[in-house]
Amino acid sequence: MGMVGGGKDAFIGAIHRIAANMDGLIEVTCGALSINPEVAIASGKALFLSEDRTYLTYEEMIQKEKNLPAEKRIDFVTIVTPNFAHFAPAILALEAGFHVVIEKPMTFTLDEAKELKKKVDETGLLLCLTHTYSGYPMVKQARFLVQNGGFGKIRKIIVEYPQGWLSRLSEREGNAQAAWRTDPKKSGKSGSMGDIGTHAAHLAEYISGLKIIKLCADLNTIVEGRALDDDGSVLLRFDNGAVGVLIASQIAAGEENALKIRIYGENGGLEWAQMEPNTLIVKWLDQPTQLLRAGSNYTNILSSFATHNCRTPGGHPEGYLEAFGNIYRNFALSLQARLNNEKPTKEMMDFPKADEGVRGMAFIDTVVASNESDQKWTEFVV
Amino acid sequence: MGMVGGGKDAFIGAIHRIAANMDGLIEVTCGALSINPEVAIASGKALFLSEDRTYLTYEEMIQKEKNLPAEKRIDFVTIVTPNFAHFAPAILALEAGFHVVIEKPMTFTLDEAKELKKKVDETGLLLCLTHTYSGYPMVKQARFLVQNGGFGKIRKIIVEYPQGWLSRLSEREGNAQAAWRTDPKKSGKSGSMGDIGTHAAHLAEYISGLKIIKLCADLNTIVEGRALDDDGSVLLRFDNGAVGVLIASQIAAGEENALKIRIYGENGGLEWAQMEPNTLIVKWLDQPTQLLRAGSNYTNILSSFATHNCRTPGGHPEGYLEAFGNIYRNFALSLQARLNNEKPTKEMMDFPKADEGVRGMAFIDTVVASNESDQKWTEFVV
Amino acid sequence: MGMVGGGKDAFIGAIHRIAANMDGLIEVTCGALSINPEVAIASGKALFLSEDRTYLTYEEMIQKEKNLPAEKRIDFVTIVTPNFAHFAPAILALEAGFHVVIEKPMTFTLDEAKELKKKVDETGLLLCLTHTYSGYPMVKQARFLVQNGGFGKIRKIIVEYPQGWLSRLSEREGNAQAAWRTDPKKSGKSGSMGDIGTHAAHLAEYISGLKIIKLCADLNTIVEGRALDDDGSVLLRFDNGAVGVLIASQIAAGEENALKIRIYGENGGLEWAQMEPNTLIVKWLDQPTQLLRAGSNYTNILSSFATHNCRTPGGHPEGYLEAFGNIYRNFALSLQARLNNEKPTKEMMDFPKADEGVRGMAFIDTVVASNESDQKWTEFVV
Amino acid sequence: MGMVGGGKDAFIGAIHRIAANMDGLIEVTCGALSINPEVAIASGKALFLSEDRTYLTYEEMIQKEKNLPAEKRIDFVTIVTPNFAHFAPAILALEAGFHVVIEKPMTFTLDEAKELKKKVDETGLLLCLTHTYSGYPMVKQARFLVQNGGFGKIRKIIVEYPQGWLSRLSEREGNAQAAWRTDPKKSGKSGSMGDIGTHAAHLAEYISGLKIIKLCADLNTIVEGRALDDDGSVLLRFDNGAVGVLIASQIAAGEENALKIRIYGENGGLEWAQMEPNTLIVKWLDQPTQLLRAGSNYTNILSSFATHNCRTPGGHPEGYLEAFGNIYRNFALSLQARLNNEKPTKEMMDFPKADEGVRGMAFIDTVVASNESDQKWTEFVV
Repeated sequence: MGMVGGGKDAFIGAIHRIAANMDGLIEVTCGALSINPEVAIASGKALFLSEDRTYLTYEEMIQKEKNLPAEKRIDFVTIVTPNFAHFAPAILALEAGFHVVIEKPMTFTLDEAKELKKKVDETGLLLCLTHTYSGYPMVKQARFLVQNGGFGKIRKIIVEYPQGWLSRLSEREGNAQAAWRTDPKKSGKSGSMGDIGTHAAHLAEYISGLKIIKLCADLNTIVEGRALDDDGSVLLRFDNGAVGVLIASQIAAGEENALKIRIYGENGGLEWAQMEPNTLIVKWLDQPTQLLRAGSNYTNILSSFATHNCRTPGGHPEGYLEAFGNIYRNFALSLQARLNNEKPTKEMMDFPKADEGVRGMAFIDTVVASNESDQKWTEFVV
Repeated sequence: MGMVGGGKDAFIGAIHRIAANMDGLIEVTCGALSINPEVAIASGKALFLSEDRTYLTYEEMIQKEKNLPAEKRIDFVTIVTPNFAHFAPAILALEAGFHVVIEKPMTFTLDEAKELKKKVDETGLLLCLTHTYSGYPMVKQARFLVQNGGFGKIRKIIVEYPQGWLSRLSEREGNAQAAWRTDPKKSGKSGSMGDIGTHAAHLAEYISGLKIIKLCADLNTIVEGRALDDDGSVLLRFDNGAVGVLIASQIAAGEENALKIRIYGENGGLEWAQMEPNTLIVKWLDQPTQLLRAGSNYTNILSSFATHNCRTPGGHPEGYLEAFGNIYRNFALSLQARLNNEKPTKEMMDFPKADEGVRGMAFIDTVVASNESDQKWTEFVV
Repeated sequence: MGMVGGGKDAFIGAIHRIAANMDGLIEVTCGALSINPEVAIASGKALFLSEDRTYLTYEEMIQKEKNLPAEKRIDFVTIVTPNFAHFAPAILALEAGFHVVIEKPMTFTLDEAKELKKKVDETGLLLCLTHTYSGYPMVKQARFLVQNGGFGKIRKIIVEYPQGWLSRLSEREGNAQAAWRTDPKKSGKSGSMGDIGTHAAHLAEYISGLKIIKLCADLNTIVEGRALDDDGSVLLRFDNGAVGVLIASQIAAGEENALKIRIYGENGGLEWAQMEPNTLIVKWLDQPTQLLRAGSNYTNILSSFATHNCRTPGGHPEGYLEAFGNIYRNFALSLQARLNNEKPTKEMMDFPKADEGVRGMAFIDTVVASNESDQKWTEFVV
Repeated sequence: MGMVGGGKDAFIGAIHRIAANMDGLIEVTCGALSINPEVAIASGKALFLSEDRTYLTYEEMIQKEKNLPAEKRIDFVTIVTPNFAHFAPAILALEAGFHVVIEKPMTFTLDEAKELKKKVDETGLLLCLTHTYSGYPMVKQARFLVQNGGFGKIRKIIVEYPQGWLSRLSEREGNAQAAWRTDPKKSGKSGSMGDIGTHAAHLAEYISGLKIIKLCADLNTIVEGRALDDDGSVLLRFDNGAVGVLIASQIAAGEENALKIRIYGENGGLEWAQMEPNTLIVKWLDQPTQLLRAGSNYTNILSSFATHNCRTPGGHPEGYLEAFGNIYRNFALSLQARLNNEKPTKEMMDFPKADEGVRGMAFIDTVVASNESDQKWTEFVV
C-alpha cells in the first residue's frame, strides 16, 4: 500500500500502519507522507521505504506508482490526511485505478462525499472507510443479534462518545492533533460531531441496521476561544420508529475514549463499550443478563462475523488496533479474492464503504443545520 | 408516625416502613392504610397496630390523632398514596399541626404543589419529600465535591434513568403498580417523567447545585395502548450555562433501576450509579481516576454529609433501604432537635423539602409542554 | 429481645439492632449492654429502654426477665460480647428457657462450642449464629445452584477474605475493635482465622454443601508486636474430593471487606463477592456467563430461598444490613411459627445454628494445629 | 527472523507472527515450521516465504541461514515448538551465532535450562523468553510502583491463573493443543504449573522484585484419565519475608484466561488483571483507590517503562497481542541498537531472559517435589 499523510508525529498514520502490518497481508511500500518535504523524507526513512518510493506529493506518488509494472506497484492508496485533504487524492487514486482506504469523515463536504461515491461506483474499485469501531468482533455480534437474537422490534438507542482531551484550549498549546481538528478550514463545519459524532452515528446505524430519519441537535462550543463545537447532544428518530439519543463530547474532563452504545428492543437489548470491547452485554426482560465474550467457543452463539474477526481465544484481550486491523484485513482479503478472481465472503466484505461515508457527511450537515434551527426536528436527508 | 396509604400489596409503603424502622427512631403507630376498609384493617393487624388506631380514612386519622394527648399522638404523617391523593391529606395534616413525609412527585399538579408549599411556609412545619436517591452518602459526597472538589465550573451533566419494567402492557396484566402509574387520572400528566424523570432531574440539581432554566423534550409512548409516556429524552440548559441530557425510560428492556449521573467540570468530574451506590467515581484531566467509597476512613476526603449518612465501615454495602432510611433519619433527627428546642445540624436538615417538590412538578409541566411544542427550547419556569 | 453487650461505641451491637429493627418483627426491650455500669445505663437510655429493664449484668437480666409474666418478658437473648464472653450467658439463657442469637465465632473454645450445642439439643430451643454473609439472597441462590444448577460434581473452591484494617498496630492506638480482636484472652487462639477465616469457611461449606476434611494452613503475624495471626492461607480438601484454597488477611492494605467465593464444577461454576452482593455470576463451559440479580423476576430461575430473602425489586440494592436482617427475620419467623404452634417453612429455618458454630470452632483449632505442624496435611475433625 | 515450529494450526506460532509483524521492525523470512514436511511447505507458502527459505528441519535452517551473506540472513531464531523441543534448536542457533526468541517454559528440564543459560552467557547473544504478560505496560507500571510508589515493604502476594479449557478430557477429543500440553513426554513433569503456573510465578517475581525461597504445593489431576496435573495451589514465601499464594487451574470451568495478581505492602498495594489489562488498580490505606490507565498522560505518574510500551492514547484498548508485541519490539530494538553499536535503553532491555527461564524451570521442579512430599515446606533452589 501507499500512504498519503501519516508522517512522523501524526497520530492516526502510525495506527494505520500497525493495523495494516498486523496480519502479514499488507506491506507499506511507498508514501507521500507529508506536505513538508523534509518530514516526508525523514518519515520514509523511518519506515524503511526505499528512497525512490518516498514521494513528496500524492500526485507524484499516484502517477509514478501507476507507471510501475503491475507486479511491483501498490494495489491501493491509504489516505490519512486531515479531512480537508481527503477528497483530491482519493479521486486521483481511483482514477488511476487504485483501490482506496480513507479515514473518516470521508470528505470535507457532503458534495465531495457524493462525488467520491459516484467515482467509486463508476470505477468499480473498492473504497474502505476506516470506521474503526465497526471492526470489533463484538460489534459485529451485536449487529448479528439485533437481526437474529430475538430482541423483537428495536425501540430505543442510546449512543454516547465522551472524551475529555479538548477540555482545555490545547490547540493553542502546541497540540497538533487539537490544532487541525478544531480548525474549520481543515476539519469541516463541525468539530465534535465530525470527529466523534460520526463514529457514534455510524455505530448506531451499523449495529441496528436502522437509518436516522430526523434529529434535533444541540451543539456547543464549551471552551472559550474555540472555533468549532466541542460538545453536542442529539435526539434521534430512526426509520422503524425507534427513538434515540446521541451524545458526543470532547470536554468531558477525565474521560478517555468512552464510546458506548445501548440498544433496546421489545424483549431485550444489548450494551457494548469500546473500552471493554471483548464483552457484549446482552439483557433480557425475563432472563439473566449474559456476557458474550470475543473469542469464546460457545455452542451456537457467536456468529461467523464475530469469529472471523477474532485472532485469539477468549480471555486474550484484543483491542483497538485489532479492530482497526480487522478493517484492513477484511479489505485486504476482499481485494485478494478479487485479484484471484474469487468472490470474497460476506464476512470479508463487511467493512465500511462509500455509502457510509456519504451518510456520515450528511449527518454532519444535518446536525449543524438542526443546531442553527429554532425548530425541534430537522429531517435527515442524503 | 401515622401512614396514609401503604396497605398490603402496596410497594412503596413497605419500603417506607423499613426505612422508618431501621434506626429505632420512629415507630409506626397508626395508619389509614387503604381506601378499602377490609384491606385497611387487615393491613393494620399485619403491622401490629392497635385496633383503635387502625383508621379507615385519613380524615379520621388526622382528626382522632389530633385529639390524643400530646405524649401519645403521632408527630408526623407519612403519605404514600398514588400521586393524585397526595395533596388533600398533606394539607389536612399540616393544618392539624402534624409534620409531613410525602412521596414524590409531591402532588398531582403544579398548582397543588405551590399551594402545599405555601401551607408549609405558613405553618412552619417540616415537610420531607422522599427523593430517595439524594439520601445516599456518595450522592451527598458528590454534591460536596462539586462545590469543594476543584472541578472548576460545571460544564456538562448527563443523567439517565433506564428501567425495563414497563416494556410490556403490564397495566393490563394485573400489575397494580403499573396500573396506577400509567393512568393519567392517578399519576398525572406524565408517566416516565413523573415517575422517574423527576428523580433524575432532582438528582442533577441536587448534586450540581444548579437549576434547569430551559429544556427540549422528546416524550414517547412506546408500548401501544398505553395512556402516558413511557420514555423520554430531554436536552437541558442550566443557570450557569452548563448543558445537559436527561434520559428516562421504562421500556429499556433488561434494565432494572439504572439511575446514573455524570457531571463534568473544567478540571474533572464525577460519576455515580445507583446500582453500585457505595462507589463515587471521581475523574481528573491530569490525574488517575479515584474511587471514593462510602464508609471509608480516608484522611480528609469524605465530607461530614457523607459520613453522617453511613452506618457501617467501608466494604459493608449499604443500599436503597439505607438511603431511604437516611431521609427518614435526617427528618426524624431534625424533628427531634426541634421538639427538644435544639437547632438541627445542617447534615440533619439535608433532606428534600417542599421547594424541591415544586420544582419537580414544574419539571413535569415543562417537559410535557416542550414535548407538545415544535420549538426547540421551552423555558423552565416555576 | 434482650441484648448482652453492644453498648455505646461497640461496633457489632449497633448492627444487630438495625438488623433486628428493620422488618418490624423484633423489638429491643431490655439489655445488659456493658460490664461498665455507667455505660450500661447510658446505652439503655440511648436505646429508649425502660430503666427497670436496663440491667447491669447478664445474670440479672436473665433472672429478672425469666420472672416477668410471659406476655411481657423477652423471647430471646442476643449475645454480642467479645468471643470469650459468649458461652456463659448463652448457657444461662438457654437454661432459663430463652432462645439465643449469638455472634460468631460461637464460643472461645471448641469444648465450649460442643457443650453449648449439647445444651441446645437438650433444651430444644433455637440458637441462631450470625454468620451474616449466609443471609444474602444471592448466597442462598448460589447454594441452590450447586445442588440444582447443572454444574456437575464440584471440583474446586476458592474463598478469600482480604481486609486491610489491621495493617497498622491499631490495637495500640486506641482502636477498641482492634484491641479485643487481637487479644488472645478475648478473641481466642486465632486472630484472622477466628474473626474472618471462620466466615470464609462457613460460606464455602454453606454454599457447596461440602465439608472440609483436611487442610494445610500457613498463619502469619505480619504486623510486628501483634499477639495473634493477622493473615493466613489454607489449602483445603472437601469430603467429595474437591480441592480448595482459603485466604483470610487483615493486612491487605487498601482492601475493605472483600469476601469472595468461587466454586467450579464439571460444567460450570459461580462467583459471588460480598461487596457487590446483588449479583451472582454464573459461568459455563459452553455458554455465556450469566449475571443473576437479587430481586429479579426471571422466569423459573431464582429459588424460593433467594426470593424469600429479598425486600425490593431488582436494581434497588440491598446490602450487609439486609443480609444481617435476613438472619434475624428468619430466626424471628421461625420463632413466631413455633410460638403459634406452626411449622416454620424451610426458607425460614435456613439460618446458621449450633452445628455450624461447632464446625467454626473446629476450623480454628485445626488451622492453628496445622500451622504449628511440619506435616503438610492436618485432619479436620470435630 | 526464522521460525522453528508454528506451522498451520499451531496456536502460539500465529500469535508470535502477529506480535513480530505489528511494529514493522521484524520480518518473518524463513522457517522450519513443522516436523511434517508437507505441513512445513504448505505453512511456508501460506506465510509468503520464499521456497528456498522454507526449510524442513531446524538443523537445515540454521545451517543454511548461517551460510547466507550477512545482509541477507536472519538475525535471530524464534522457537515455538512444544516444550520438549526447545533446547536443541536453541543451543544450535546460539552456536551458529543467532540470537534467540523462545517460548516458555524455556526448556524441558531444569538441567537443560541451566545449560542453555550457560550457552547464552558464553556467546553473549540475546535470548528473549516470551513471558507475554510481563509485556503489558501496566505490569511494568506495577513493577515501577512497588519500587517507587510508597507501598512500603511488600507483605503479601496473591497471584492466580484460572482457566477452564481443560475441564474435559479434550486431549482425547482431537484438541491438538490439549494433547501435547497434557503429555509428559512433550510438556514436561507438570501440566498446569508448567503451562500457566510458570507465568504466574514469573509475574509475581517480576512485579515484586522478590524471589520465592520456599513453597508448599498441592497439585491435582482433576480430570480422570489425564496424565499430568491440571490444577494446583501453592503457598509461597519470598526472600524479604513476604507470604503468598499462587493458584493455577485449567479446570476452572467457565474461566477464560483470568491471570490476576494482587500485591500488598505496608501502606497500600495494587491489583492487575490480564483480562482488563489497561487498568492498574492502586489501593491505599488512607486514600481512595486509584485507577491508573495505560496510555494516559497524567502529570508525573506513569513511568517511562509503561509509556514506552504503549502505542495508543488512553481509552484505545491494547491487549494480549500488543503485550506480546512489546516483548518482540523491545528485543528487536535492543538487537537493533546492538547491531548499530549503540547501547539499548533500559526500557528496551526490559524483556525476560535466560535467568528467568532457569527460575521458571526450577519453579516447576520445586512444586512437583513439594507436591510429592509430606513435609509442609520445600526449599526453592536454583
